[in-house]
This record gives sequence, C-alpha cells and structure tokens, in this order.
Amino acid sequence: MIPVPKHIQQLKPYVAGKTIEEVVAQYNPPRISKLASNENRLGCSQKANEAALKALPVIMNYPDPACTLLRQKISEKTGIPAERIMPGSGSEGVMQLIIKTFFEPHEHALTASATFIGFTVLINSRGVGLRQLPLTAGYRFDTAALADAITPDTRMVYIANPNNPTGTYITKTEFEAFMARVPEHVMVIMDEAYYEFAAGLDDYPDATRYDFDNLITLRTFSKAYGLAGYRIGYGLAHPEIIKTLMKVKLPFEPSLPAQYAAMGALEDDDFLRKTQHMVESGRNRLYRFLTEKEVTFVPSASNSVMMVFETEEQAAHFTEEMLKKGVILRRLPGFGLPNCVRVTVGLDAEMDHFEEAFEAVYESVNQS
Amino acid sequence: MIPVPKHIQQLKPYVAGKTIEEVVAQYNPPRISKLASNENRLGCSQKANEAALKALPVIMNYPDPACTLLRQKISEKTGIPAERIMPGSGSEGVMQLIIKTFFEPHEHALTASATFIGFTVLINSRGVGLRQLPLTAGYRFDTAALADAITPDTRMVYIANPNNPTGTYITKTEFEAFMARVPEHVMVIMDEAYYEFAAGLDDYPDATRYDFDNLITLRTFSKAYGLAGYRIGYGLAHPEIIKTLMKVKLPFEPSLPAQYAAMGALEDDDFLRKTQHMVESGRNRLYRFLTEKEVTFVPSASNSVMMVFETEEQAAHFTEEMLKKGVILRRLPGFGLPNCVRVTVGLDAEMDHFEEAFEAVYESVNQS
Repeated sequence: MIPVPKHIQQLKPYVAGKTIEEVVAQYNPPRISKLASNENRLGCSQKANEAALKALPVIMNYPDPACTLLRQKISEKTGIPAERIMPGSGSEGVMQLIIKTFFEPHEHALTASATFIGFTVLINSRGVGLRQLPLTAGYRFDTAALADAITPDTRMVYIANPNNPTGTYITKTEFEAFMARVPEHVMVIMDEAYYEFAAGLDDYPDATRYDFDNLITLRTFSKAYGLAGYRIGYGLAHPEIIKTLMKVKLPFEPSLPAQYAAMGALEDDDFLRKTQHMVESGRNRLYRFLTEKEVTFVPSASNSVMMVFETEEQAAHFTEEMLKKGVILRRLPGFGLPNCVRVTVGLDAEMDHFEEAFEAVYESVNQS
Repeated sequence: MIPVPKHIQQLKPYVAGKTIEEVVAQYNPPRISKLASNENRLGCSQKANEAALKALPVIMNYPDPACTLLRQKISEKTGIPAERIMPGSGSEGVMQLIIKTFFEPHEHALTASATFIGFTVLINSRGVGLRQLPLTAGYRFDTAALADAITPDTRMVYIANPNNPTGTYITKTEFEAFMARVPEHVMVIMDEAYYEFAAGLDDYPDATRYDFDNLITLRTFSKAYGLAGYRIGYGLAHPEIIKTLMKVKLPFEPSLPAQYAAMGALEDDDFLRKTQHMVESGRNRLYRFLTEKEVTFVPSASNSVMMVFETEEQAAHFTEEMLKKGVILRRLPGFGLPNCVRVTVGLDAEMDHFEEAFEAVYESVNQS
C-alpha cells in the first residue's frame, strides 16, 4: 500500500451538517427546517439560475481560463479593477489555491482556535504549521494577540470577518491597528464570506477598501447569494498576487454554469436586499426568543446565531432532540466549541418551527 | 510584497487554445471550427443538461460531501464499488488532490516529456521533483525506461493512456510488464481521459480491470461525454486511497449541477456511441486526407490526431494560416513538440472546413 504522509494521516474526515435525506431516514419528522449550514433559506435569485442556462449550449467547451466576463462583472459591481480579482471554486477554492501557492515547508499560519474549519484543514493538509490562539471572552478574534504571535516564520494570518461559527466581527479600529503591526512578509487573509450581512455596520471594516499589498479578501456566492451548490467565490488582492495565483489555479475552474450564475446573481440587488432583511429580522426575533428563554447566545453580524450551553451534554442533547422534531442545527465540537450550537437564520416559517420545537424540548435539556 | 516560493515563480502562465471570441477579434473569418481543445464537437447528451436542471431548486444548499448518488451511478455503470470511486472537479481536479495528498518534499514524479501539461504544472506547483523521459520514436510512452528510472524517492508515475497530445497508447502487454516492475511504494496514475475512444481496441489495457493497490485510474466527463464546462471527472482506486483522498478534498466539490449532469450523461449510451462513431470515422477520413497530402501524422486512439511537420516554422506558419481561415488548431511547443500540431476530430462539416482550409494554405507552408 502507498505510504501516506504523517500530516495527512492525522487529518480527520470532514463532518458536514446532516442532510435532509439523513434526517428523514433517522427520525422521519413531519417537517424539516435545515438550519445547519448557513445557507440562504430564501434560495437564490431567479436571475442567477436563468443566467446559468446560458452555459448549457456551450457546455462541451472548456471555460475561458481568465474568467474574463465574470471578472469584468465583479469589477463593475465592486469598483475594484479586474486585475485584482481571482475567481475560484467557492472562497474555499481560492483559499486552497493561496495556501498551495505561498508556503515554504518550515512556515506556519496563525488563526483563532474557533473559526472556519476549512482553513485549518487546508493548512494541515498542506503540511505546514498552524498556531491557533484563543478567542476573546466575547468569542471574538483577538487581533492584538495575533499580532503579538507573528514570527519571521509566520506566512499567513487568517481572520474570518464576520467569524464562523461565532458570528462576531473585528472592528475598523481593531483591523487598522492590527494591519499596522503586521510585517510585509505576512499575508493577511480576510475571509468575508458573510460580508453582505455585516456591510451595514458602521464599525465593520470592508477589507477591500484598504490598500495593503499583503492583504487578500475573500468573498463568496454561497451565502447571501444562495449559490452554494454551484461552488463559486473570489479573492481580491494586489495584481501581482493575482498574477501568481492565476499561474497556479486549475486552468478551467470555476465551472461555466457557476460563472454565469454568479454574473446573474450580481444583477439582482432586490434579492440581496430581501435576503439581508430576512436575516436581520430573523436574527432580532431569535435574540428576543433566546433572551426570553434565558439561553445565552452571541450577538451576530452574520446569518447565524451561536447558542452557548453550560455543558457539552446539554448542547448534544438539545441538538439531537431538535433533530427529532425536524430542526437541523449544527453542533460545534469540531470548531473547539463543544458546548455551543449554531442556528442559521431562516425563513419566518423555519423560525416558527425552531421556536415550537424549542418549546417542546428545552425543559428536558435543562434536566439533562 | 509577499515573497513567492521559487518553484512558484518558475511556473509559466497557462496558455489555452484560442477562444472563438479571440479568433473573431483577430481575423474575423467567415466561419469557425474549434478543433484546438479535444472537446466533443457533437456537444453533450440532452439527458445531461436536463439532469443538471434538477440541481437548480436546491442550488442554495451545499452538495453532499460524499457525492453518494453520483458514486452509486458510476458504480452501476462501471461495476466498480462506490468505495473505490473518487469524484472531483474534472480529472485534473482529482489529479490535484492526489498530488496534494501523497508527496513528501524530497520525492519526485516520473512521466514522459510530451504528455498532458496539467500534470507537470501540478507537480511543479507542488514543489516536488519531476523527471520527464523522452517518448519512443513512435511518440509513445516508454514504459521500460520509466520502470528503469524508478528510485526509492519516486512517489508517482503518470501515464496518460491514450496520451495527450500524441493520441498514442500503451498496450496490455506493456502495461502488465510495467506494473510487474513497479515497487509497492510507487503510485501509478493511469489517466484515461480518452478511454472511451480507445476502449474498443483489443490490446488497450483498461486499467480499472487490474487489481493493484498502488494504481489510480482517472476518467473524465470532459471528453467523450462533452461536459468540459461543468468540470467533473473521477478517480478509481483501492478503498484506502479513496478514504485518504476524501479527507483532503474540498468538502463540497464537484458542484451539484456537474454531479447531476454526469449522472444524466451516464444514462445516454446512444450519445456516447454516436460520439465514438463520429471520432472513428472522422479520424479515418483525416488519415486518408493527410496520407494523400503526404503529411506525416501519428495514428491515434483518441479524438485528436497529431500532425508532424519538418520544422517548427512550418508548424507555426500552418497553424496561423489555418486560423485566418477560421480553423483553430493547437500548436504543441508547451508539450515539448514544437514541430507538431494537434487536430481535434470534429463534425463532418468541421472536417470539410479543415480540408478546404488546408488545400488553400498548404502550398505556402511547404514554401515557408
């Protein structure tokens, strides 16, 4: 049998949120609300799916390796020049490309203990070092501690802003103070997968509005735009970084239907606003409900809210009981938060379902 | 600016075949035949595009990380158990995953000097060694020389069968003799992207019919199935290898429309036969034509035929003159074959166009 490098042997298989099919097979509840994966419960813009159909007559052809049309469209909508835009198979695809491209074997990445698992898996599978610092008491990235921890062998700092799974964000002041302390040789990845839910906050730092040569901002069509199934996102950075990444990327990614769908999605500001409104009002409703029930939660700048239980057992019991009622939530032991549960903010009917199921199961949780 | 590792600096940007838009902009010919990228000129099965539409109502959701339905369908059609099947974003996506997973820094890969560039780019961007051996005089993989070249630091041997861009293949006898000499620690990648065009040959070794723990076979939906724009392919290997690769893959690739399209394509044997028939008859027609014109070519087990000119200048001049007439062909300097030109076998009308353009330009090539 082929020898497997040690750093690969040590990886654990990815555990996704439960699929609807799995829940049906296990408990067959009368209805199901999938609130486990921070997807857009409104679906996606019709313009996205209509645009994707334009790919079908030419689907036998390889896509344009330069993704010219998509980059132009993103450029138009963001005001950022096309030469600064790097499309990929989801922002995780761009992340994979960055990690593949910029490391020397002895170097390491820095991030928080509880953040997007995709980044830590990619670093571990790259076989380079990973240092994870604790979040603050408020479940936020500790930017001062990250800056303190930088050494000459630090190649990359990863900050998800807003963070997943906590929903917290770092402020403009924190971001600016942090960047002022980061040496030029360290690449800062600002993962703004949930940007569209935080953009309205006064003190939220849109990283694309800063001019640092060592900064890469990631955006995705999987969240607010509801295109997770297409696998498309992009990175924004200095043209020299993009030029380097373009040499390393698989020539024909992302897929052509994904590129067209993304272009269509960018044409539909109404859908985006509707999504932002659903998330904002659903989040406020969830805050009120959890406050009334005296459940600890972390205020969120994202499309999910993290509940904090006293014990791991309570979190596990609650999640399983909710599942029996058809409400799929996400436990977070893989994120280093074993006593926390993440709830995606969904449609009114899904939040009704959440509340009803909660009322039915919560007493037993307190007794567990 | 962020330092770029040396092995990445040395990469050259990918040069794809010219797009139709580029040719129109440059020469604006009255018609265009795109015979540069070994795509399926028949298009794809209607069943594929119809099946892809099933993804649209659930496109806001992440795909199943295990790709359960697709693996089941491939298993049904090939008779190979699902636990031996690894879907990816094109066979190049699976290749990227394999290269990412199995190398230690001091190891190297072996392949031929003139083969699929994607493999060599992936190896170079991984920062491990690459040794490329000359093809035989008949433009074939030299399996004996490859076996001779294996050392304790050889981790991987890559053989494209049929080979791209030459269209040649290694025989059952050669494959078996080669595998008998390959030590267990060396992974053999048999890239069968063009399998469907060679499967009918008596002495073609379908690698999936052999039981070696250190063998990975790659297949794609980009060629015979005409789904290049979707980015989907798969690898076939021992379940332990698949288990390891599943830990390293991006959780949600390939995209959901691609998975559905592939399942649909596998339902349409008629389309596949039609494609195989088009390629076989077009290839024979091309052989007769080139023989009559006294142009050297390499007999092919693939959907392309490689023409061999006496000089690089002739190859360049011919390709450019054909382009002016709207026939897009592929020069091969990047493959180490500067005096060769690859022609994709297309529809009757496209082969007519090729012959007419050839008649008009060939005399000037002989004088160049």
